[in-house]
Amino acid sequence: STPTPGSASTLRLAVIEGDGIGKEVVPQGVRALRAALEPAGVTVETTDFDLGAGRWHRTGETLTDEDMARLAEHDAILLGAVGDPGVPSGVLERGLLLKLRFAFDHYVNLRPTRLFPGVSSPLANPGEMDFVVVREGTEGPYVGNGGSLRTGTDLEVATEVSLNTAVGVERVVRYAFEQAESRRRKLTLVHKHNVLVHAGHLYRRIVEKVGAEHPEVEVDYAHVDAMMIYLVQDPSRFDVIVTDNLFGDIVTDLAGAVGGGIGLAASGNINPTGAYPSMFEPVHGSAPDIAGKDLADPTATVLSIAIMLDHLGHVEPAAAVRAAVENDVAARAGSEELSGRGTAAIGDALVAAISG
Amino acid sequence: STPTPGSASTLRLAVIEGDGIGKEVVPQGVRALRAALEPAGVTVETTDFDLGAGRWHRTGETLTDEDMARLAEHDAILLGAVGDPGVPSGVLERGLLLKLRFAFDHYVNLRPTRLFPGVSSPLANPGEMDFVVVREGTEGPYVGNGGSLRTGTDLEVATEVSLNTAVGVERVVRYAFEQAESRRRKLTLVHKHNVLVHAGHLYRRIVEKVGAEHPEVEVDYAHVDAMMIYLVQDPSRFDVIVTDNLFGDIVTDLAGAVGGGIGLAASGNINPTGAYPSMFEPVHGSAPDIAGKDLADPTATVLSIAIMLDHLGHVEPAAAVRAAVENDVAARAGSEELSGRGTAAIGDALVAAISG
Ligand SMILES: CC(C)[C@H](C(=O)O)[C@@H](O)C(=O)O
Ligand SMILES: CC(C)[C@H](C(=O)O)[C@@H](O)C(=O)O
Repeated sequence: STPTPGSASTLRLAVIEGDGIGKEVVPQGVRALRAALEPAGVTVETTDFDLGAGRWHRTGETLTDEDMARLAEHDAILLGAVGDPGVPSGVLERGLLLKLRFAFDHYVNLRPTRLFPGVSSPLANPGEMDFVVVREGTEGPYVGNGGSLRTGTDLEVATEVSLNTAVGVERVVRYAFEQAESRRRKLTLVHKHNVLVHAGHLYRRIVEKVGAEHPEVEVDYAHVDAMMIYLVQDPSRFDVIVTDNLFGDIVTDLAGAVGGGIGLAASGNINPTGAYPSMFEPVHGSAPDIAGKDLADPTATVLSIAIMLDHLGHVEPAAAVRAAVENDVAARAGSEELSGRGTAAIGDALVAAISG
Repeated sequence: STPTPGSASTLRLAVIEGDGIGKEVVPQGVRALRAALEPAGVTVETTDFDLGAGRWHRTGETLTDEDMARLAEHDAILLGAVGDPGVPSGVLERGLLLKLRFAFDHYVNLRPTRLFPGVSSPLANPGEMDFVVVREGTEGPYVGNGGSLRTGTDLEVATEVSLNTAVGVERVVRYAFEQAESRRRKLTLVHKHNVLVHAGHLYRRIVEKVGAEHPEVEVDYAHVDAMMIYLVQDPSRFDVIVTDNLFGDIVTDLAGAVGGGIGLAASGNINPTGAYPSMFEPVHGSAPDIAGKDLADPTATVLSIAIMLDHLGHVEPAAAVRAAVENDVAARAGSEELSGRGTAAIGDALVAAISG
């Protein structure tokens, strides 16, 4: 489809730098985005949102209705990282990050793993690694449906409920099959259906059903525990992995670790319908210990920009960003001097490469 | 305490070979047990239980009340592996394995990881690895408290409930602290308390409370996703890990994989009170593809026997079994000839070394 000039020439980007190294890596991501879209004549208009630990400490707010309404007016959201040790566990996760994912119906959490040439893996024999995890983003044990009784006493009972719906599972499974069609046509469902029989059987049934519409895609299954073994012994066997919210959280951190480190792990929280803006973020956290020292690697953020560009239909700019990253990580791996570069210098190199 | 001669001189062992390679590795475990207890003058009396896929195919039964009553008359249970591809998912897991763990209140699922000298890891730099996971065995998402509504339709809703109690958490956390006291005095709680806030906060509260009674034990915490990264980047940092049933399932498979392979991973399903017999089993499955070919490694089963011996108070025989295994894996790693040995030959070597 040909975008109308008016809408295509401007991309309205909501920017949530967040805390810690988020403030350093996000500006590099924005620069990369601008550089990538320039040849296409697209201007990036940014709106900064003051969200995260800083705002919470000052105001006690995580994400107001007004913030939500303003965010919703954008084409996409770039988020760095939120959190610092002074915020109680769960406050920003439930009140900000998950609230955005749920409110904007980011039912696809897309997390690619690719071991770039020259990048070292903690595995002795990593082999080729090029797969993508399609993690469900709006259901499962993440729904916040838990509680406790006799809290704080010796008789406390605490529950957590995983909620899964056919509608919710089918839409993410469909997305995963589409990814598989555009890749190596292999899809692996990850669950634990021998124990979590109800949720597990729902996933199985839907994968079978949607799989029947994709006879070219080879489908297999792995229990989440067995997946741990496969990911360290033979990660090259995977192409597209589809799984629930919690298993996806766990599997993608392992994938990131074996795939060259969490400093390279990118993600998109995607609403494929376009009803709400999708949100792109590096998988790493705010890393307060190295914040403000120009030490953070902005590569995961820049790779998240590539996912954003793909989602917005800018396929060539996305490819240009990925090519720049691939060359840059190879150059860094091959040179002592380059391997010591800081956040801004890596950003400079990437922007220069993207601008060609 | 000095056991009375009558009870100490006989160990009544319930033997569940199960299916596939279970039938090959269990006999080697029994031989190792006999060899280890001989110097102490303890006779091993075995009762074979026909349980698993074979029995289910023939009779439709998984575990009857009569089986349970007979099993309960034993001092310990040795289980090989159950399952074959012809049994629907969940039947033997819920109907046999988990039923035993729950009915016999095996609230400690003990899974040590030790990278033996000479054994290779899929990690490029594994370092020293010697830690033990204390996995809760009778609560969490494993309670079987799930269901589905409008099953099989486009409107299906499927739930899984994680149930956790202060009593259940405290007893396993106490056990973990005791392990830590007898080891390097470090305990790591693994959970996901930033998302599963109720269950997660219960675990945190109890670890804090019991930790106050163990001021010498250094306590830390890792989210289950971050744990994936630590286990491939720096597994030597861990001593005792305590976690819930599902996270324990996942973490121990990764631990097994990086710790030299699931062929060496042993486990005990323990009721520390002695109210019911505890059950010891290798972590691996029935591996139908290699069954009946003398290819299975009985080492994980023999190491499970060492855990059994410790649990029953036979500390020296347990140490003898571990020493035999350590020497044997080193010998196998150092010799092409030995590295090709089959199930029975490994069993022979271990028995000879234990009998010393
Ligand atoms: C911070 C946390 C809530 C989040 C999650 O669990 O999804 C993070 O681990 C992630 O993977 O994006
Ligand atoms: C077979 C299955 C029910 C079991 C579990 O999930 O506990 C297994 O994976 C294990 O770790 O012992």
